[in-house]
Amino acid sequence: MSWNSSAGDGALHIVGGTLVNVFTGETYCADVLCRRGLIAEVMPAGSATAPGQASLDARGLYVLPGLINGHMHVESSMVTPAEYACTVLPHGTTCAVADPHEIANVLGAAGVRSLMSSARSAVCDFRFTAPSCVPATAMETAGASLGAAELEALLEDPAVVALGEMMNFPGVVRRDPGILAKIAAAGRVGKPVDGHAPGLTGTDLNAYVAAGVSSEHEATTLCEAREKMRLGMWLMVREGSAARNLAALLPLARDTGGERMMFVTDDRHPDDLLAAGELDEVLRLAVAGGLDPVAAVRMATLNPAAYFGLDDRGVVAPGRIADLWLVRDLAGFETEAVVKSGRLVYSGGRWVGEPEGIRAGVTAGAGGTGQANSVHLPQDLSGLLRVPPRSGRARVIGIVPGQIVTRNLALEVCLDGAGSLGPAGREVSKIAVIERHGRRGSVGVGLVSGLGLAGPGAIASTVAHDSHNLIVAGSSDREMIVAAEALGECGGGFAVVRDGVVSALLPLPYAGLMSRRPVADVARGIAAVNAAARELGCELESPMMALSFLALPVIPELKLTDLGLFDVAAFRHVPLWIG
Amino acid sequence: MSWNSSAGDGALHIVGGTLVNVFTGETYCADVLCRRGLIAEVMPAGSATAPGQASLDARGLYVLPGLINGHMHVESSMVTPAEYACTVLPHGTTCAVADPHEIANVLGAAGVRSLMSSARSAVCDFRFTAPSCVPATAMETAGASLGAAELEALLEDPAVVALGEMMNFPGVVRRDPGILAKIAAAGRVGKPVDGHAPGLTGTDLNAYVAAGVSSEHEATTLCEAREKMRLGMWLMVREGSAARNLAALLPLARDTGGERMMFVTDDRHPDDLLAAGELDEVLRLAVAGGLDPVAAVRMATLNPAAYFGLDDRGVVAPGRIADLWLVRDLAGFETEAVVKSGRLVYSGGRWVGEPEGIRAGVTAGAGGTGQANSVHLPQDLSGLLRVPPRSGRARVIGIVPGQIVTRNLALEVCLDGAGSLGPAGREVSKIAVIERHGRRGSVGVGLVSGLGLAGPGAIASTVAHDSHNLIVAGSSDREMIVAAEALGECGGGFAVVRDGVVSALLPLPYAGLMSRRPVADVARGIAAVNAAARELGCELESPMMALSFLALPVIPELKLTDLGLFDVAAFRHVPLWIG
Repeated sequence: MSWNSSAGDGALHIVGGTLVNVFTGETYCADVLCRRGLIAEVMPAGSATAPGQASLDARGLYVLPGLINGHMHVESSMVTPAEYACTVLPHGTTCAVADPHEIANVLGAAGVRSLMSSARSAVCDFRFTAPSCVPATAMETAGASLGAAELEALLEDPAVVALGEMMNFPGVVRRDPGILAKIAAAGRVGKPVDGHAPGLTGTDLNAYVAAGVSSEHEATTLCEAREKMRLGMWLMVREGSAARNLAALLPLARDTGGERMMFVTDDRHPDDLLAAGELDEVLRLAVAGGLDPVAAVRMATLNPAAYFGLDDRGVVAPGRIADLWLVRDLAGFETEAVVKSGRLVYSGGRWVGEPEGIRAGVTAGAGGTGQANSVHLPQDLSGLLRVPPRSGRARVIGIVPGQIVTRNLALEVCLDGAGSLGPAGREVSKIAVIERHGRRGSVGVGLVSGLGLAGPGAIASTVAHDSHNLIVAGSSDREMIVAAEALGECGGGFAVVRDGVVSALLPLPYAGLMSRRPVADVARGIAAVNAAARELGCELESPMMALSFLALPVIPELKLTDLGLFDVAAFRHVPLWIG
Repeated sequence: MSWNSSAGDGALHIVGGTLVNVFTGETYCADVLCRRGLIAEVMPAGSATAPGQASLDARGLYVLPGLINGHMHVESSMVTPAEYACTVLPHGTTCAVADPHEIANVLGAAGVRSLMSSARSAVCDFRFTAPSCVPATAMETAGASLGAAELEALLEDPAVVALGEMMNFPGVVRRDPGILAKIAAAGRVGKPVDGHAPGLTGTDLNAYVAAGVSSEHEATTLCEAREKMRLGMWLMVREGSAARNLAALLPLARDTGGERMMFVTDDRHPDDLLAAGELDEVLRLAVAGGLDPVAAVRMATLNPAAYFGLDDRGVVAPGRIADLWLVRDLAGFETEAVVKSGRLVYSGGRWVGEPEGIRAGVTAGAGGTGQANSVHLPQDLSGLLRVPPRSGRARVIGIVPGQIVTRNLALEVCLDGAGSLGPAGREVSKIAVIERHGRRGSVGVGLVSGLGLAGPGAIASTVAHDSHNLIVAGSSDREMIVAAEALGECGGGFAVVRDGVVSALLPLPYAGLMSRRPVADVARGIAAVNAAARELGCELESPMMALSFLALPVIPELKLTDLGLFDVAAFRHVPLWIG
């Protein structure tokens, strides 16, 4: 590909490429003229290049619309929106619809606005959904709460394109007025409501759809996905780092041509973004699985644009934003170049022009709210963690390796006054969830089996779904306090303590969820804390991720929140000791 | 089909039918529960009927969404919206998007609002587009003018779903600020802009699309349609009474599966509506032409709903308006029943329940503005029609039978002081366009060849595209004045005068364009005036329609407006006499 940058008027003429037309499903030779950031003309191949226009020789390349990720959480990447954009633009993504559910649970509407503000400096465009379920549950203390009024204010922002994933499907089905008010707020501004209803079926699913929920990304089986599509839901096929539904749902896309379906990543972690890519990986897998390549491209361009009413993008047509992805073929989808808003920004494996400018937003990071330390630990941690010495039968959270469900175990343990577990120490550890939003100062204390912390030490995290309190497990109260205080000082993240000193620390100072470092540094940092945790004896593949899900009280069987142990089956808090 | 009307709670359970699922393209057995006007549930066949619910046995029938006509002019049917609805609902149409371009040219925004108000009593739902080109040209005097401010006010009405057909494509292409302001007004309220650009191609078409025009219904060839679709325009396949484009464009629908395409009727006349139907006829023709039946149904349901953002209809899904069309098969599309807003209103060839109520709006007709006589003839018609006696070479409008183009003829004629043409009388008639909106009182006078008015008489019409002035042709000024005054008295319509007396009259008192009578009466009335015109010697198939297009100054070659003869090629007014 040759690049003639002689132009001075900001026009860019992409000549000789093969256009992937997502409107008609055709591929054919066409030239694309970009001007003032928009596509000005799409003309039959061979139209003369007007003098003074920069021209890009696209012979041998396919010209696609830039990809749109219809559902993702920036927070899962643990980097800022600007850094996320720098990571995925080379993979063809030029727009992402981010659900800021995690930061909202920590910092509320101000956190959402901080993320939105931070995203403005990114090389990709971000659009947002207004998080519908903050707090996620009443069984824990979140940093904030978003009611219908706050959501309505967010929904009026042009950058907010939908009400975010409506996880409280029982509330929708039983027509809870507070929940319906949130849906009505989206309706008033004509924006759709994203769904989140794993396994919902039959009459309840009908009620959920009738209430106004219009998409779904939690379907995991063909049968579930088909029932949801038949009732009119737009189907987001999720291919995240952990939850991967493409293989199961691909037959439906093949049957329907992918209409009213789109590809999304939901949660992708730093290492996965670096190693596998983003939507480009999903396209590769989909085409390898037998889906027509143009249908696959539509599922990551025209379809999300149509669903979210993003009329200004997702297609190669006059008047739309000139976001283009040039690839060598429609199987490997290997990036040759990316044009963002009419400007060639990435070509031949490197940034074009001003890479410093492009990455400028990365270290600058977040706006005002995100700059402050969001970790507010209660006074007298030592007293709050203390449990009177006792031997007997206790409720213990049993980790199941590789899953987010846990077991509700009943084990004989002997706990001393310093938080040590005596002979059971290698098998069972003390664990605590410390409210860190400066609201209640509450601490829940419990026991966990399966972390395998053998030596004296502790692991701690401020990433703890969904309220993101500080969760810490360790061999003694003293080790746990050192880990918690290390995170309190650096504004949150992951910490490992060994023999009373911090052996590994990944600061995530932006809301205690995200770093302001490049994604490669963050991936290395995660690897380092996990390695340090394994040095304590933990044999889990990803100790920090396992820890971060132990406070999620909607997933069976036994979880711990800042308000205490929670028995999910009984749907109530329970005491540590049995009898 | 059996109908158990024992229910008292307004619920209707349609059991045992075969659902046409426009989301997935499938057909399968399913039960549909309607409640409070909406679809409450779509469940697998065999779900039990809850006690007290009226049930409709739909075994052996297909259950489709009610049809949506995405582009039509009520005025072309010459009846009120309520009567139009009564005419087409038995053909499966439950919603029509009406462009009130004709009444707007007569009565302006008040006329549009009158039509909208009148439509509220109809058994179908009407949505409207805001007429973008009023007046249509500067070469004639329309009754009103709609600027960007008036259009913006209309566009804010929830019943207005788009800016109406943007016929002034030269103005868009050259970026006329007044035209762009109208498009911007639609953009501000997030509503699409309907196009109207016959033959536009290449760079000009790119500019038209880039300006924000998003659909087109004027494509007549496959090549033209494909170019427009490739650039992202939604393609309306028009099958009107005169303009019929289905046969030419059907291959494109077969290729693309009909995505982003829809069926519309634009202009359908009363006799055609009665004899052939409406969208149901288009579906029959499309399926007979090889289009997949479900794809065809989508083009008249889901697709127009998607294009216009009508999220509340066009599909059989929970929460949507329960508008359903039950047919015996997907080839003949013969209506068995129609459910409107959850109520069975038509079944087995007749209205159900209160037919008087259903048709109530028909004779009530229009609201305030529409009640007044809109025909305001100037004083001293006799003086205004008078042309000094002269013999010589004159410009004569040459009618081409069956077409709306005319010839610009130069003929030797001899005109006496009474408006008679002496020996040329059978071949050439005097014709006048009389400004009838009470604005300028202007009268244009000319000569026409091909009407064939042999005996003493005249024919007149207040339907005269696009400004709908009164157009009259006759053997003498006296006969012409009798015809014009007959229309002035009855509020407009069609009149035929023979030997100085009215021999046939069809009053169209609603804006001089529409009747308040049933469509069958109007069809008979049109037949009667055409027959009376033929008794004067006219050999055209539809003399009144031929007359109504002689004042349209955008169609070549020679036309007459209230401001005089207009040479379309030269694009200027020209004198009657040559030299």
